[in-house]
Amino acid sequence: MSSQEFEQVTESTSGPARPNPYGPNPSDYLSNVQNFELIDSTLREGEQFANAFYSTETKIEIAKALDAFGVDYIELTSPVASEQSRKDCEAICKLGLKAKILTHIRCHMDDARVAVETGVDGVDVVIGTSKFLRKFSHGKDMNYIAKNAIEVIEFVKSKGIEIRFSSEDSFRSDLVDLLNIYKTVDKIGVNRVGIADTVGCANPRQVYELVRTLKSVVSCDIECHFHNDTGCAIANAYTALEGGAKLIDVSVLGIGERNGITPLGGLMARMIVAAPEYVKSKYKLHKIRDIENLVAEAVEVNIPFNNPITGFCAFTHKAGIHAKAILANPSTYEILDPHDFGMKRYIHFANRLTGWNAIKSRVDQLNLNLSDDQVKEVTTKIKKLGDIRPLNIDDVDSIIKDFHAEVATPRLAGGKDVSSQDVNDIDINEPATKKVKTESAN
Amino acid sequence: MSSQEFEQVTESTSGPARPNPYGPNPSDYLSNVQNFELIDSTLREGEQFANAFYSTETKIEIAKALDAFGVDYIELTSPVASEQSRKDCEAICKLGLKAKILTHIRCHMDDARVAVETGVDGVDVVIGTSKFLRKFSHGKDMNYIAKNAIEVIEFVKSKGIEIRFSSEDSFRSDLVDLLNIYKTVDKIGVNRVGIADTVGCANPRQVYELVRTLKSVVSCDIECHFHNDTGCAIANAYTALEGGAKLIDVSVLGIGERNGITPLGGLMARMIVAAPEYVKSKYKLHKIRDIENLVAEAVEVNIPFNNPITGFCAFTHKAGIHAKAILANPSTYEILDPHDFGMKRYIHFANRLTGWNAIKSRVDQLNLNLSDDQVKEVTTKIKKLGDIRPLNIDDVDSIIKDFHAEVATPRLAGGKDVSSQDVNDIDINEPATKKVKTESAN
Repeated sequence: MSSQEFEQVTESTSGPARPNPYGPNPSDYLSNVQNFELIDSTLREGEQFANAFYSTETKIEIAKALDAFGVDYIELTSPVASEQSRKDCEAICKLGLKAKILTHIRCHMDDARVAVETGVDGVDVVIGTSKFLRKFSHGKDMNYIAKNAIEVIEFVKSKGIEIRFSSEDSFRSDLVDLLNIYKTVDKIGVNRVGIADTVGCANPRQVYELVRTLKSVVSCDIECHFHNDTGCAIANAYTALEGGAKLIDVSVLGIGERNGITPLGGLMARMIVAAPEYVKSKYKLHKIRDIENLVAEAVEVNIPFNNPITGFCAFTHKAGIHAKAILANPSTYEILDPHDFGMKRYIHFANRLTGWNAIKSRVDQLNLNLSDDQVKEVTTKIKKLGDIRPLNIDDVDSIIKDFHAEVATPRLAGGKDVSSQDVNDIDINEPATKKVKTESAN
Repeated sequence: MSSQEFEQVTESTSGPARPNPYGPNPSDYLSNVQNFELIDSTLREGEQFANAFYSTETKIEIAKALDAFGVDYIELTSPVASEQSRKDCEAICKLGLKAKILTHIRCHMDDARVAVETGVDGVDVVIGTSKFLRKFSHGKDMNYIAKNAIEVIEFVKSKGIEIRFSSEDSFRSDLVDLLNIYKTVDKIGVNRVGIADTVGCANPRQVYELVRTLKSVVSCDIECHFHNDTGCAIANAYTALEGGAKLIDVSVLGIGERNGITPLGGLMARMIVAAPEYVKSKYKLHKIRDIENLVAEAVEVNIPFNNPITGFCAFTHKAGIHAKAILANPSTYEILDPHDFGMKRYIHFANRLTGWNAIKSRVDQLNLNLSDDQVKEVTTKIKKLGDIRPLNIDDVDSIIKDFHAEVATPRLAGGKDVSSQDVNDIDINEPATKKVKTESAN
């Protein structure tokens, strides 16, 4: 087949028909992608993270930071977990935060009686509904679960406090059992029902189907909780919102049992693409980095190198063709604008994959004057050294300056100046966060 | 509403109708969830990771490790990127690995002529098709792209080498443009077409729709490449397979441009849930930890604390009700079996969220004899100290031993022995991988 036989392709140079192709799918008429709420569980699920031990002061500091960020709810460890857990819960309720304070209890009157006295705005009730949990955890059948749930819900409601009923391990529960119990608790007036992927087994299309089905059964809001064992916690949360869920459980850095749940920062990365105005107007995205650092320090972990938004290389561009395009227009290789999060982008040009456009940008930054052909020539020299060993910026600058001195192009007064927009906007030096071990790579 | 009014719920005690509810959805008749292949790009996409500088020896070591794991393809940096890149490509082709060796080039005859001389089994061709990339990267229209693609594809095919044609930034490309070019290259006999979420903007249901649509247009295999900027790279890969894609691009730890692509280990966690027999028979899952350590060392990063499978707490259970159920049956709170990956599970019992079942298990391990009521009593003491400060195992053991000495229950000869299955199977000591900073938490 010769190229002549190729049919003329449609050139679409006009703008897209929909203003934001990553926004809610019009076929999802129940979508809450542009109208979701966050329940942060760093102080409940996050306390179940292997490394977590929070002092009262740390809990208060985290709660205040989450409130300043703008989460809608803050969920706390059950007041019956320990004496100090109860006191801390009461202390946080007294802070007068804008976020509503929740605590998370077993579906049992003993727990409920303590919870309603703490001053919380709402109680999250949970019980295992899968065969596994019914057999090996609490040993109760669905009738017993329903009876208990009704008693607890009516008691909490009688105190004028919000109530959520969630199944546990929802995706391994019998669908008919689930819909039955949700329908029952919806009828008696729970504020929310919860779906929980307690073991992290769910995949996005399963989530969408279950949420859509549940949406047709209950009139209350749907909350979702996703563990990340199989790496789908962010995608599952997003897809749940598409299906009509309203609230997502998150924790800072996703900390929780095992490898945790949907992370606050990662979900913000996902949601800002789909609903930029809503997300930017509601949440203080510039605070993500500080909150992550606060919690990382409290539970003694490092920010993962590949963390969305705040990973040290999240906005670092390296390959030559990427660097070239980013210099022309950052949207070419970025769906997230680092400035929305108080971050900066970087062009990593000191390596053998570099291209002449990135080097030209560096030449401009150094206020040197080289023709395009000369830049291409010096780029070849840089790539040659980059083949032999890791480069740092000083290496590259030395090669450029040596080359410039050699060719001795006279600098024209008023000649092409540094492209100041590029230089201010794009830092072609080092990433914001230092990499873990930096010495030998530089 | 009283509990009497509650309708009897269906008790489903029989097994599920489908043997594996997390397996392929029967409605996805084109699904390749049980029949997928892996293209590992640690040595191509991974070289575009900010920290990556691979020596020839490191490249060879990584290639051999990937081959031993069982990846189907290994993709290498373009031989035109630098002189050493070309030599390394040739060296890896000569290793005689079982995995097919690919190199990744621009859609240009200059690159293709060099690539076919390296000894590779296949060439992956890519060109930007979104308006952004057409305008700011290569400046070509779709007709030019098609003409070039045909020339390159026919040339590579004439050498008897596999050829893949991929668009770049597929999810921001015009759908009609995309289908047109894919249909054209399919007609002239490419082995695979590729969809690439180059900027990490796609969400799972978009992916499913695009793959399904493309599947109806081409007869060749579909390969997918997902960046992780918005945290959906694993879920998108899984959903692409559901839609009929056959091959997924991965890299070890997901390293690549910015925060990278679908990680090999994370995708294995996802796939073993859906297709356990296929995954376990095809890939050497025990090798994941060593490969990740090898690459982490090569690019000087730490394994993220929350990494699927190999994160230090991926199989650590902490909250009392979790520990209780895990001790009874690990499937209650685990969808992944740590033994499949050469890992172990841990019960974290030295904290204030602990429960008496976990402490009872420790009492048994210590070969002490306490009644259930006594275990509950000592659990209260442990939780009390856990309210004051972080605990370690020695703290808990001391409390248990003191308590035991106090109650001075005579140890019955032949009395209840350690539950050896629990003890061998479940390590209630410390996680396998040390946490990043360990001193102050212990």
